[in-house]
Formats: sequence, structure tokens, C-alpha cells
Amino acid sequence: MSAIDTLATELSRLPGIGRKTAMRLTYHLLKQPAEQSKRLADALVALADNVRPCATCFNLTEEEVCSICRDPRRDAGLICAVEEASDISAIERAGEFRGVYHVLGGRLSPLDGIGPDDLTIPALERRIASGNVHEVILATNPSIEGEATALYVQRKLSPYQLTVTRIARGLPVGGDLEYADGVTIAQALSARRSM
Amino acid sequence: MSAIDTLATELSRLPGIGRKTAMRLTYHLLKQPAEQSKRLADALVALADNVRPCATCFNLTEEEVCSICRDPRRDAGLICAVEEASDISAIERAGEFRGVYHVLGGRLSPLDGIGPDDLTIPALERRIASGNVHEVILATNPSIEGEATALYVQRKLSPYQLTVTRIARGLPVGGDLEYADGVTIAQALSARRSM
Repeated sequence: MSAIDTLATELSRLPGIGRKTAMRLTYHLLKQPAEQSKRLADALVALADNVRPCATCFNLTEEEVCSICRDPRRDAGLICAVEEASDISAIERAGEFRGVYHVLGGRLSPLDGIGPDDLTIPALERRIASGNVHEVILATNPSIEGEATALYVQRKLSPYQLTVTRIARGLPVGGDLEYADGVTIAQALSARRSM
Repeated sequence: MSAIDTLATELSRLPGIGRKTAMRLTYHLLKQPAEQSKRLADALVALADNVRPCATCFNLTEEEVCSICRDPRRDAGLICAVEEASDISAIERAGEFRGVYHVLGGRLSPLDGIGPDDLTIPALERRIASGNVHEVILATNPSIEGEATALYVQRKLSPYQLTVTRIARGLPVGGDLEYADGVTIAQALSARRSM
């Protein structure tokens, strides 16, 4: 297989990139200086070689313990449990949360064969047992599987002396009632707060 | 900058890939075995190191002369001139053309500072002067710049003993008259053929 076809094949393995886009990207790279392809190659190798899960929270990091867990200004007693490390970036972008995280490594999904043993729930329990954790916020996705995962974790944590909360569901800020789905509206109504 | 941010930055340099898609692709790669990132990196390095323009037609190749120019079953006297090497793949996919190619390396575009000297027109003239070329098909894009380029090349080739043709413009096969733009319809009408 030619170098062009090989690269296009590798690129088309990525999600959302079909054969045509892969060819377009390949031809684009051919028009750029060779350094651009090599910088991209170096970045891929560095990613594969250096990035691993944080020993404490399973966030992705290039150190033993991630920068959020190491930050002394953050409240180590407030843990926000998320499905994936990518969810941490989303929450950090919001700039509101000053606690630490715990990456569950997915959601319970019996149909995909993902059970409690495939998630990092025992590690979360060990963190709680060994420290001064006062609250765990369950920030799994508001999907059926995310809800089931939150419910499962909540039950697992019930023996411990701490508050377990769930992120609020409701209408997204800037959203339009007219275009919101019925389940979201129902959630927004039942979770209404006095003003 | 972290390995994750570095890769996301490099990926977001690619056309059609914004910051969000780049992060999504990076996290996707982190969930795959490290070999996938490394195969992609190898393919990028191989592309940068091995692919170069064909000495005859400027098609992209890993040899001195590309496989189309080397193919003895193809008519070396029939040259199809295209703007970019990627146009060759498109024409080859159609499976109709049995001649050879000449990649002009772009189109005339005074606004972008691309003049005749930036294209491979002198090399095309040398090919014609030295061989038995009987026809040059100008297959530049049916855009204003593509038309101007075709016109320029046609004038440059007028001293030579050969036929110069232009690919047909008209309604695309499977297209719909109702949704075709006015210029395409006008071209299709003026280029009508007796049946």
C-alpha cells in the first residue's frame, strides 16, 4: 500500500472521519511543509508514550498524580465523579468547581457487558475510606445509563458518612422551552426551586 | 504544554478540524491501544519522507516516476492537465480515462499572487516538445480561476501541432434542473448536442 493510502486508512479509523475526509486531510498535509506532518507524528507518539491515568482520580496525566489532585488550593474533600476524563475538561472550562474529581471509566451498560467491576468504584470507596471526603457529586451523564450508574454509586456509598449529590437536570441556559424535549421539561418542572 | 494539548493543537491545524473535534479525537486515541496512535504517526512520517512529485507529470508518488506514467498500457500521447494531484484520484475513480496526466500545481490566481511561473506549464511544454503528444485535455475546475487557467494554457499550447480540449460543463448526472444554478444551466444549454 502506498504512503498516501496508508495514511488515509489510518486517518479514516478516527471517529467522524470517512474515506473522503481522510484523503482530503492527506492531500492537505502533502501541500504543507514536512515538519507539520512530523510534529503531528511526534505529538501522537508522545501521547501514546506519556499519558496515563492519575493514580488517585484516573484523570489523564503525564505525572504519577494529576495537576488537579496535586493542587493544594482545591478541596480534596469534595469529589466530583464523572464518566470519562474528557468530562473533566468540560467542567473545568465552566470554571466553577473547586473540588477534585474521580473518573469512573465509563457507565454501567449491561448490553455492552460493562458491569460495576469495569468501573473504578472500588478505588472511589478506598479514597473515601482513607480520607476526609465530605461530599461526592455524581456528574455522570443525564442518560439512562448515566442515571443507573449514579444510582448504583449512590447505593455503594450509602454506608459512608458523607453527602452524595447529583448534578441538576433542567433546561440548558440559553435554551428554548419550545424546542426542549418532554423529558427535560418534566425534569425542569419537578426540580423547580422557589425564588 | 501537555501531551494532550499538544496533540489537540496539531490536529486542529488540519482543515475542517476545530478545537472541539481535535479534543474528541485525542480522547478517542487515548482510549485505543497505543499501537493505533503509533501506526498513525508512522504513516505521517512515511508520507513526509517518501512522497514526492513524479518527475514527468508531478503526480504524487514514492518512486522517481509515478505508476500512471510508467504504465505501458496507457496512451502517453493523451495528456489530461489538472490543477492538483488529488484531481487525478477523482478522474481515476471514474475509470474512463486511459491517457496520462499533468499536474499544473494550482490555478492562476492574481489575487493570491499565483502567476504562470508558479505552475508547471513550462514542464508541460517540454513534454509536448519532446514527445508524440496528440491531445491535451484541460481538466481544471469549472471555476473562474480554473477557466482562466485553461484559457492561458490553451494559448501557450497554440504553437504546437496538437488538439487542445476542455472538459464539458453542464448538469451533473443525477442532478436536478430545479436546483441547478443559472450559470450551469446556461452552460448546459449553450453546450447542447444533437441527439
